[in-house]
Amino acid sequence: MTDFVRSFETGSMEDKDLLGGKGANLAEMTRLGIPVPPGFTITTDACRHYLSTGEVPPGLWDEVAEHVRALEARTGRRLGDPHDPLLVSVRSGAKFSMPGMMETVLDIGLGDASVEGLAAQTGDARFAWDSYRRLVQMFGKTVLGLDGERFEDAIDAAKAAKGVRADVDLDADDLRALVGTFQRLVEQGAGRPFPQDPREQLEAAVVAVLDSWNSDRAALYRRRERIPADLGTAVNVQAMVFGNRGATSGSGVAFTRDPATGASGVYGDYLPDAQGEDVVAGVRNTLSLADLERLDPTSHAELLDIMRRLEAHYRDMCDIEFTIEQGRLWMLQTRVGKRTAEAAFRIAVALVDEGVITEEEALLRVTGDQLAQLMFPHFDPSGARSLLATGMSASPGAAVGAAVFDSDTAVRMAAAGTPVILVRRETTPDDLHGMVAAAGILTSRGGKTSHAAVVARGIGRTCVCGAETLEVDTRAGRFTTHGGTVVHQGDVVSIDGSTGEVFAGEVAVRPSPVVRYFEGSASVDEGGPVVAAVDRLMTVADKHRRMAVRANADTAEDAARARRFGAEGIGLCRTEHMFLGTRRTLVERLILAEGPDERQAVLDQLLPLQRADFVEIFEAMDGLPVTVRLLDPPLHEFLPDFTELSVKVAVAEATGAEHDTESLLLLAVHRLHEENPMLGLRGVRLGIAIPGLFEMQSQAVLEAAAVVNERGGHARPEIMVPLVGAVEELRAIRTEIDEAAERARLTHDVPLEHLVGTMIELPRAALTAGAIAEAADFFSFGTNDLTQTTWGFSRDDVESSFFSRYMEAGILGVSPFETIDPLGVGRLVRIGTDEGRATKPGLKVGVCGEHGGDPESVRYFEERGLDYVSCSPFRVPVARLEAGRAVVGG
Amino acid sequence: MTDFVRSFETGSMEDKDLLGGKGANLAEMTRLGIPVPPGFTITTDACRHYLSTGEVPPGLWDEVAEHVRALEARTGRRLGDPHDPLLVSVRSGAKFSMPGMMETVLDIGLGDASVEGLAAQTGDARFAWDSYRRLVQMFGKTVLGLDGERFEDAIDAAKAAKGVRADVDLDADDLRALVGTFQRLVEQGAGRPFPQDPREQLEAAVVAVLDSWNSDRAALYRRRERIPADLGTAVNVQAMVFGNRGATSGSGVAFTRDPATGASGVYGDYLPDAQGEDVVAGVRNTLSLADLERLDPTSHAELLDIMRRLEAHYRDMCDIEFTIEQGRLWMLQTRVGKRTAEAAFRIAVALVDEGVITEEEALLRVTGDQLAQLMFPHFDPSGARSLLATGMSASPGAAVGAAVFDSDTAVRMAAAGTPVILVRRETTPDDLHGMVAAAGILTSRGGKTSHAAVVARGIGRTCVCGAETLEVDTRAGRFTTHGGTVVHQGDVVSIDGSTGEVFAGEVAVRPSPVVRYFEGSASVDEGGPVVAAVDRLMTVADKHRRMAVRANADTAEDAARARRFGAEGIGLCRTEHMFLGTRRTLVERLILAEGPDERQAVLDQLLPLQRADFVEIFEAMDGLPVTVRLLDPPLHEFLPDFTELSVKVAVAEATGAEHDTESLLLLAVHRLHEENPMLGLRGVRLGIAIPGLFEMQSQAVLEAAAVVNERGGHARPEIMVPLVGAVEELRAIRTEIDEAAERARLTHDVPLEHLVGTMIELPRAALTAGAIAEAADFFSFGTNDLTQTTWGFSRDDVESSFFSRYMEAGILGVSPFETIDPLGVGRLVRIGTDEGRATKPGLKVGVCGEHGGDPESVRYFEERGLDYVSCSPFRVPVARLEAGRAVVGG
Repeated sequence: MTDFVRSFETGSMEDKDLLGGKGANLAEMTRLGIPVPPGFTITTDACRHYLSTGEVPPGLWDEVAEHVRALEARTGRRLGDPHDPLLVSVRSGAKFSMPGMMETVLDIGLGDASVEGLAAQTGDARFAWDSYRRLVQMFGKTVLGLDGERFEDAIDAAKAAKGVRADVDLDADDLRALVGTFQRLVEQGAGRPFPQDPREQLEAAVVAVLDSWNSDRAALYRRRERIPADLGTAVNVQAMVFGNRGATSGSGVAFTRDPATGASGVYGDYLPDAQGEDVVAGVRNTLSLADLERLDPTSHAELLDIMRRLEAHYRDMCDIEFTIEQGRLWMLQTRVGKRTAEAAFRIAVALVDEGVITEEEALLRVTGDQLAQLMFPHFDPSGARSLLATGMSASPGAAVGAAVFDSDTAVRMAAAGTPVILVRRETTPDDLHGMVAAAGILTSRGGKTSHAAVVARGIGRTCVCGAETLEVDTRAGRFTTHGGTVVHQGDVVSIDGSTGEVFAGEVAVRPSPVVRYFEGSASVDEGGPVVAAVDRLMTVADKHRRMAVRANADTAEDAARARRFGAEGIGLCRTEHMFLGTRRTLVERLILAEGPDERQAVLDQLLPLQRADFVEIFEAMDGLPVTVRLLDPPLHEFLPDFTELSVKVAVAEATGAEHDTESLLLLAVHRLHEENPMLGLRGVRLGIAIPGLFEMQSQAVLEAAAVVNERGGHARPEIMVPLVGAVEELRAIRTEIDEAAERARLTHDVPLEHLVGTMIELPRAALTAGAIAEAADFFSFGTNDLTQTTWGFSRDDVESSFFSRYMEAGILGVSPFETIDPLGVGRLVRIGTDEGRATKPGLKVGVCGEHGGDPESVRYFEERGLDYVSCSPFRVPVARLEAGRAVVGG
Repeated sequence: MTDFVRSFETGSMEDKDLLGGKGANLAEMTRLGIPVPPGFTITTDACRHYLSTGEVPPGLWDEVAEHVRALEARTGRRLGDPHDPLLVSVRSGAKFSMPGMMETVLDIGLGDASVEGLAAQTGDARFAWDSYRRLVQMFGKTVLGLDGERFEDAIDAAKAAKGVRADVDLDADDLRALVGTFQRLVEQGAGRPFPQDPREQLEAAVVAVLDSWNSDRAALYRRRERIPADLGTAVNVQAMVFGNRGATSGSGVAFTRDPATGASGVYGDYLPDAQGEDVVAGVRNTLSLADLERLDPTSHAELLDIMRRLEAHYRDMCDIEFTIEQGRLWMLQTRVGKRTAEAAFRIAVALVDEGVITEEEALLRVTGDQLAQLMFPHFDPSGARSLLATGMSASPGAAVGAAVFDSDTAVRMAAAGTPVILVRRETTPDDLHGMVAAAGILTSRGGKTSHAAVVARGIGRTCVCGAETLEVDTRAGRFTTHGGTVVHQGDVVSIDGSTGEVFAGEVAVRPSPVVRYFEGSASVDEGGPVVAAVDRLMTVADKHRRMAVRANADTAEDAARARRFGAEGIGLCRTEHMFLGTRRTLVERLILAEGPDERQAVLDQLLPLQRADFVEIFEAMDGLPVTVRLLDPPLHEFLPDFTELSVKVAVAEATGAEHDTESLLLLAVHRLHEENPMLGLRGVRLGIAIPGLFEMQSQAVLEAAAVVNERGGHARPEIMVPLVGAVEELRAIRTEIDEAAERARLTHDVPLEHLVGTMIELPRAALTAGAIAEAADFFSFGTNDLTQTTWGFSRDDVESSFFSRYMEAGILGVSPFETIDPLGVGRLVRIGTDEGRATKPGLKVGVCGEHGGDPESVRYFEERGLDYVSCSPFRVPVARLEAGRAVVGG
């Protein structure tokens, strides 16, 4: 005998993998003696078999038939009985809730004969024929795939013929006639009559539910919610109970606490004389649970008792669905309830206070993603809005400002006190100053890992990117929506980085009390109950946390902010930003330098500028480690774009305009032009190819540290060499750094510590980590670049070009740039860590790059035993929380 | 007591790591009782200690002193003895011969006192003073680093003063005066007098030899010859013997067989009354060994006896250096002699015939590189030449033809019967037809892995690339040399792909008899002794070989050629070349297609064209497997260059010229433009992003196979999906392929086998090979791309930009694109192979890409247990030979 079907009486809430959430919880309630209409669950094993072979498992229908017989024995009714038929519902129920995504068929078991029996038994012919009407309609649409409009049209025609407007105005005879119409529609559409055999109905409905796992909307939902496509759904077959049997019947949904705010006390909706579907559909105004107490105090008391038992049993806020059939209460579903981020924190802490759970359990009840949500300002939901476009939610928050189309204007207007939204087709490193100055960034091109998105997240700016319906004309200083609305420079727009929405005009914004608390500008008490809950759970997280959390910060300002957010050092201080702005001309001169003397002269000018940068940063991070990455990007990033410059020179040539300077520059740009700059002359390769460059940077770092120490501070520089693939590269540069440190120690009479380490961001670095560790004091996994090379994906290119298709096809569940890919990139992280430490047991190993602030990835790094993660300042609390959760959650 | 010095009497030829080649062989000869002047060797351990610390090991000089005492005891002379001084030579001797790269100091032990003793003892004052003069000069130049010109000037002045022209015309008194002059030069230059203490002389000379390991020329030589930089050299200290003691003295070098041709019989040069240095310097005309027999039959007989013993002992051709001092024969060096490729094959086979070695040993005596050398035509060394430039030896051979500057002209002129050399700044895929048509390719840009070089090696064309002194003006149809010579289109040039030389006019070429033999156009007998030897050893190699050898071939012509060369199938049939030429417009239409219908229409047109291609290839490879790789390169490679097109459109705009077509195309090019195309939309990503593309290709392959089978042939298609990083990608495409196969089986009533596999060319593919193997029948490592992503190197970019600096700095010993990098890429090959086979034990695993034809890499793949290697047709015999050697060599 196969084993693909389980009675509700044999399972428990632990069996979600096999029974799905709904089935497991129905079984659990049955086990607890809570009134649940009897039934059984067809397991996810059966679904997986169906999905992989296209056939239900052999023997399944025999097993189902046996369970139907048991159900019949238990209820005393028989499927298809012309006198007193058993009716069943067939509902999907996957491991993870996918509300409304899959199919349901109700009232199975009715036919031309048994409908009369149901009418006789219930003494309610209209109820019986309405149930039959619903079955034929649902079966036609869901099981046979017919056009639902046809059925709705027929109902409208019936009402029109009778001259009434509401469904309830159709009586038993009207509905009987409608069933006849529906049956003809089915026969025409499907080429065969509506099946009278209830077994045939049941089996077809089960297959329809199985098929609905792979419906487009279900697949899309799974991709969005990161639910694996191969889990499959269970199918629950359950005796029908009816909330639409008159005034003593009804249906409702309820929560054991308020799922929106987390406030204590039950909360729910009740609809008399209605099925559960009617409550969810929201077509009629529902009553409160207080109303139910008035209408049916016995059922109300029983319901509250059951809710108390469920919360105590599940040790968490639960949501339930129930039906009262002629004064008898039935529970149709329960589960741990979904809640807002705010409610999650408040409920978790309340349950601790009530002695239900420990503070460690409470920590596991909230997530870093929820904390992140609480940290962004939101648009006031009651505010008026006029939607212009929807792009990708690239960096959350709500930002309002005047639209500006170039970075210089953004800086100027922001300095004059006008908040601005920087609008570009796409951004480049040249836009950094504008992005920093702006309240938000809006682009019409690029995905969630485009330059705009990455930088915006890094500097904590709201960003909507890839709003492709917008035509952005930066020269004219305007964008045009799909609908033809034109937004000019200076017009106010509002962008919601959490939803990707772009609105015209100003939408009211509510600042985040949680951020004000983290920043120290509001006390816990001022923050209210949410902040109090966050404060409690951050303390728990920090108590248990093993990994340190550092920040990626390039300026003293960022460093100070990160510190307020709890960063315990800087894990990545990029130096390329220090070569932009007014210093760009120096970099151009460095690139164009003829001979070592000219080059050295430029480096000598850069040295004091760099040193001053580092002094500020070391002071902001006094006493904490600061990891400085030596120059990484290809030099041509500091020069004009090759194509643009080529066009400029060619046009000038064609029109006889002066272009000597451009031509000279073009030669250099052409010389440095690379087919694949990501894989070209950058990182340590620059340090080796341009003698003196890394030496100058190291000298600046170490002299700055010495200066800070002389002033009584405690600088802890950690110099990091990027893009190392072979220990020989690191050795060559390490010599330069150590020499610079020696010189700094000779010229400054203060203690000066320094570490030298490397990014592990190439597969070869991870694969030869054992050798590289010989020359390194620390490793920092650059998981962004490591993901690029391990997968052979260029972030700049692939996100827009085919990631979406990969998601659609289910090939990628989540972008590996967002959450670390454990099988490929993660394996290299493991190899690199383990083999590095095998060589040098005390080797400090961290991660910088966006994965350092991603909750799932943080857990992964905890498992791998990394010493720290480093992320953008804004993500530091998230990383702290997740690092604590990872320890507590094991 | 430390152990850094070994007497010649305690070592053997096995101790090359420790004693260096020269030292180990001197010890071996000593052990054999062959007359060797006594001495000792300072080991490479001492050198490595010196190299890493800058100091000789503690205790070294005490040890040296002790061995000097033993030497004194043995020779009965003392260093510095004013009556009968012991003189010693100090010579380098590394594990691998580095001829002339390091220093030598002779006649150590002479001083102002002992020179008189030597004069008295030998009765030859001129000899004594000349020896002293040589010592001071060599010491000043080599040990003290003084300018050698100063000493030569002094000699010239002495000769001028005396009015003579030759050194030999200076008598003892002249030389005594010259020693005084030299001592003053030393004192002026070094700031201290020439040391009289022989110990001081000895120690300084030893240090000078150690230092010379890291001289620029030695470092350069090691990089060229791939000798590790950290091996270090041994230093041999040996009692001097003198070949310049009159008519009964002399020096010579000899080989036990002819090192140029491999012909049997001793071969050598002898110079009476001369030191060994004089023979090597070639300043005087040498005599033959036959002349020696006449001059000194005893020594001659002894020498021949020793040579016989050495060859028998070493079981190989040896070369030796000897000195006869007043009728007494001394051996100063022996080693297994270097030889030409031709000699290597002939000697190996001759030794088998003489019963000295087995045929397996003979196989190990030749290399794939040597075979490759024999396969290229060479310029007649006696021909006249006028060198225009020297570039990189990118693809060997000798090619002569008319210079042409564009591919269309190349094709036209070649078709008209004129051999051409295609001259470009650099080549692109658009030049393929021109490269195929040309006899050779010459570029002024790009390194050994530039497009020109890679393709040239692939199609077996001679190529010189990166001849940077040439200014190539393709529009004007000419190039200009550094010296100002202008070569116009049609002017004949000759290029030597083995040396990188470019000559004006026609240099006579000798075709390779070995190729004629492989091609079947000449029999073994016609080929002469070299071909006979190659034939013998190929048979031995094939007998032992475990791995199959396939060819990378894209056309039926190439396939047929590869088969003649012994290929056992095609390991890589690229399909992108099938989209070039006249079909390019179809590809453009495919790219510009609006909607699925238009796209499908283009695919329908491509299908029969592709099918016809494959029919030809399957017929050429009848009965053997053919691995077809689905389309790999990014689509924009089929479109015009983004920058060029941008310039064109902008100029047209500026000048008011018509440019509608270009503008339209520019939109598409811009849409497809990628920052890093190597990491962009290519390979399997194309197959998923462009529905129908891979399906069409698979259909073409499988229908072609069915057609061939219907004609009674036996096609064995293996369809290969490129750039897979996740098993989900392969699964998606595999479904399409398997369906296409099913359709082909339904429409053609013949047996049709097919395999589906994947390239493993991304780190993630190797790291998840266990999962990928579930969906693959075979793996083929694409080690070119795998090297790019593992190292994060773009071949197109890095070779020219910084590889040379990496080589100079010793960071890279050899390009990982040439020979597989075992620590990084190789480790991924191992992981991929082992884990793929763990999932699927019978998994067929091969390698395509240039490493498949690289001797060292072939050995690596044998060790890893791969099933086959695939390489360019021309490299097939090389791979066969190396695959056999790898098995025999273990």
